Amino acid sequence: MTKAPETEKETQRIEAFSDGVFAIVVTLLIFNVKLPDPAAVTANGLLAELAKSWTIYLAFAASFFFVLVMWINHHRLFTIIRRSDNNLMLLNGLLLFGVTVVPFPTSIVAAYLLDPQQQAAVFIYNGWFFLVAIMFQLLWRYAAHNNRLFSHAVDPAITRHIARSYNIGLVLYLAAVLIDIISPPVSLAISIGLAVFFAIPNRQVQQLMTTSDTTA
Amino acid sequence: MTKAPETEKETQRIEAFSDGVFAIVVTLLIFNVKLPDPAAVTANGLLAELAKSWTIYLAFAASFFFVLVMWINHHRLFTIIRRSDNNLMLLNGLLLFGVTVVPFPTSIVAAYLLDPQQQAAVFIYNGWFFLVAIMFQLLWRYAAHNNRLFSHAVDPAITRHIARSYNIGLVLYLAAVLIDIISPPVSLAISIGLAVFFAIPNRQVQQLMTTSDTTA
Amino acid sequence: MTKAPETEKETQRIEAFSDGVFAIVVTLLIFNVKLPDPAAVTANGLLAELAKSWTIYLAFAASFFFVLVMWINHHRLFTIIRRSDNNLMLLNGLLLFGVTVVPFPTSIVAAYLLDPQQQAAVFIYNGWFFLVAIMFQLLWRYAAHNNRLFSHAVDPAITRHIARSYNIGLVLYLAAVLIDIISPPVSLAISIGLAVFFAIPNRQVQQLMTTSDTTA
Amino acid sequence: MTKAPETEKETQRIEAFSDGVFAIVVTLLIFNVKLPDPAAVTANGLLAELAKSWTIYLAFAASFFFVLVMWINHHRLFTIIRRSDNNLMLLNGLLLFGVTVVPFPTSIVAAYLLDPQQQAAVFIYNGWFFLVAIMFQLLWRYAAHNNRLFSHAVDPAITRHIARSYNIGLVLYLAAVLIDIISPPVSLAISIGLAVFFAIPNRQVQQLMTTSDTTA
Repeated sequence: MTKAPETEKETQRIEAFSDGVFAIVVTLLIFNVKLPDPAAVTANGLLAELAKSWTIYLAFAASFFFVLVMWINHHRLFTIIRRSDNNLMLLNGLLLFGVTVVPFPTSIVAAYLLDPQQQAAVFIYNGWFFLVAIMFQLLWRYAAHNNRLFSHAVDPAITRHIARSYNIGLVLYLAAVLIDIISPPVSLAISIGLAVFFAIPNRQVQQLMTTSDTTA
Repeated sequence: MTKAPETEKETQRIEAFSDGVFAIVVTLLIFNVKLPDPAAVTANGLLAELAKSWTIYLAFAASFFFVLVMWINHHRLFTIIRRSDNNLMLLNGLLLFGVTVVPFPTSIVAAYLLDPQQQAAVFIYNGWFFLVAIMFQLLWRYAAHNNRLFSHAVDPAITRHIARSYNIGLVLYLAAVLIDIISPPVSLAISIGLAVFFAIPNRQVQQLMTTSDTTA
Repeated sequence: MTKAPETEKETQRIEAFSDGVFAIVVTLLIFNVKLPDPAAVTANGLLAELAKSWTIYLAFAASFFFVLVMWINHHRLFTIIRRSDNNLMLLNGLLLFGVTVVPFPTSIVAAYLLDPQQQAAVFIYNGWFFLVAIMFQLLWRYAAHNNRLFSHAVDPAITRHIARSYNIGLVLYLAAVLIDIISPPVSLAISIGLAVFFAIPNRQVQQLMTTSDTTA
Repeated sequence: MTKAPETEKETQRIEAFSDGVFAIVVTLLIFNVKLPDPAAVTANGLLAELAKSWTIYLAFAASFFFVLVMWINHHRLFTIIRRSDNNLMLLNGLLLFGVTVVPFPTSIVAAYLLDPQQQAAVFIYNGWFFLVAIMFQLLWRYAAHNNRLFSHAVDPAITRHIARSYNIGLVLYLAAVLIDIISPPVSLAISIGLAVFFAIPNRQVQQLMTTSDTTA
């Protein structure tokens, strides 16, 4: 009983630190969006020049959405994970490493989306999200192993569902990376579809979680 | 009873993440303010050169104030919103997207306020705030629908008042955008006036909230 | 009794938002410190070239210390301030505006400390800290007026002490600004001395606060 | 009894402020990683040009890991430190100063790792981590002196273990700095090894801490 608040506090600081990292990444993305060249603005008008940079806005908006979805999933994981240890801090740190890198592939895909280097740019972009999916998988597996870091027995049906959606995600991100060899636009469409998939929670899991909370 | 702390915790992390985003946006605005050209400083003196950049300081100060008012209103909303679900996280994420973009239209209006492109610059600036007003409207409507995410029955008079002020805001932001066709300065004056309007809370609502708190 | 946690929560979010702003300002200061020119490094060696930028490091370290002292004083104020209202949020927002601007005068004084524009640069730097001192004064006076926002009766001796130190600070910051006309280095020395003064708490106030806590 | 929550609150805000600083530093590191030169990309391909910047990625990843390990150790310290005073805030502020500077030596070592200036670059990089180790030592010694800031009697075995690992760290960081005279790569290897050492907690200390928590 005396240990409970101690443990709670530890997870809270991990979440606060992670929230900080997610919030900063999401906010700094806009700083890759630069003002158009003043001479071109004078010649063609501001709105026309801004409109030319649509690939940059697209890459910015997509990455914002991707990082938001990562945050929502991190948030979901930590409603289940309640205990903390040193390995969790390192694996969570690895995931945050993956998150902080996102602005770099974003600026690559923004710069080379309509360029002959499109395929390489999409490879780096989707390849990085595949690596982030692996980092999520590692964090989840470590925490879920024998319910190691769950505060109370979680309904095994929830664990199964989350594990399955993470496995599906991993396979489809890999597919997105491979499909880039044939068609970069299709590859991008798959990874955006995957973000939508992870943005919407499984209805069954949500019901199970609510039930398990009430009976806890 | 067992569910209450669970729910409370979820809203808290949304607020913490949002606070982070607001704090970073507000702080990064200053990084659009650059040092004057060293050669011009040598020729004309530092103070004279700094004074020439007054449009940049004005745009910086206005955007700081706008984002601060957004934060205050976000804060007010989340004293009423106490429950959380996946849609709230997505709608709140959409609002945060609107907030993180602010430095970009700010740098546009700072660069083109005294330029022939003034009208286009003010259109983008006020147009963006109109979009943010829509995002606030969506968040509010979702949370307020049948008191969906309120922890206890909120006095319907409060809901009516907030809804009315959000509707007024939306119409006047649209007016500001349209008036830019006739006069960009008047358009800017309206949007600054609107920020002042949302900075000062409705006295009646405040009294109602205090009463509803005490009787809760 | 039902209102207490409500109020507590509101101050907490103001503090969280403020902590975010202080933390970001303090961290972004280093980004005004640029790498030396590669050609000069090849000619003179890395260490020699880095050593030439000592005014930049000095300005960076001084501003870090100044913002840290502002944070410590903000922290101290909010151990006394426990209730919140809309005006407090606006006055706190004004203070945060003052804090977010700091990197700009810092980069000015870093660039012009050894330049003929030294006097103007120190005027802007110390002048800004004088304005921040006024913002602290406004926040304090508003909260302290009739113990408006204190959760319980604070020993009037504490209020008197804090008010006196804030008044002394205001006068001495003004003195620092004026002395810049005669000697910029002396002006800088005064403002650094003032930061040291505000870094060390009044022993008498600390004792009073401890006593008032224990008897609360 | 009345004092306990007061004190708890103070440490919490120090931790929140520190978390903010760590989170921002860790996130901003990526902004030293720039896009390759467009002309070179057109000539050699995107992937080939990106691969050339491996020293930058290495420096980025190493510094991310170093700051993460600092955060984990800060976190560990503040599970023991529970009371706060003005000196703690200043010493913690000094440590945060050390943390915020990290992106600067990181960009130095990234730029000059394969350059004749390698030795000077590694000297600055490892030299800075040696200074940060001193700052940790100061914070720890101040808090640990007569258990000054511990909420309850901590098992002296824990104190001894932490003190010993901090002393070992200090000596080995100094060794890394000195070995740079003979071999910069070996010097870097030692400091990476030290980060791994501080990433993994002492098993004995962990057991003692768990025991002391349970019996508290």
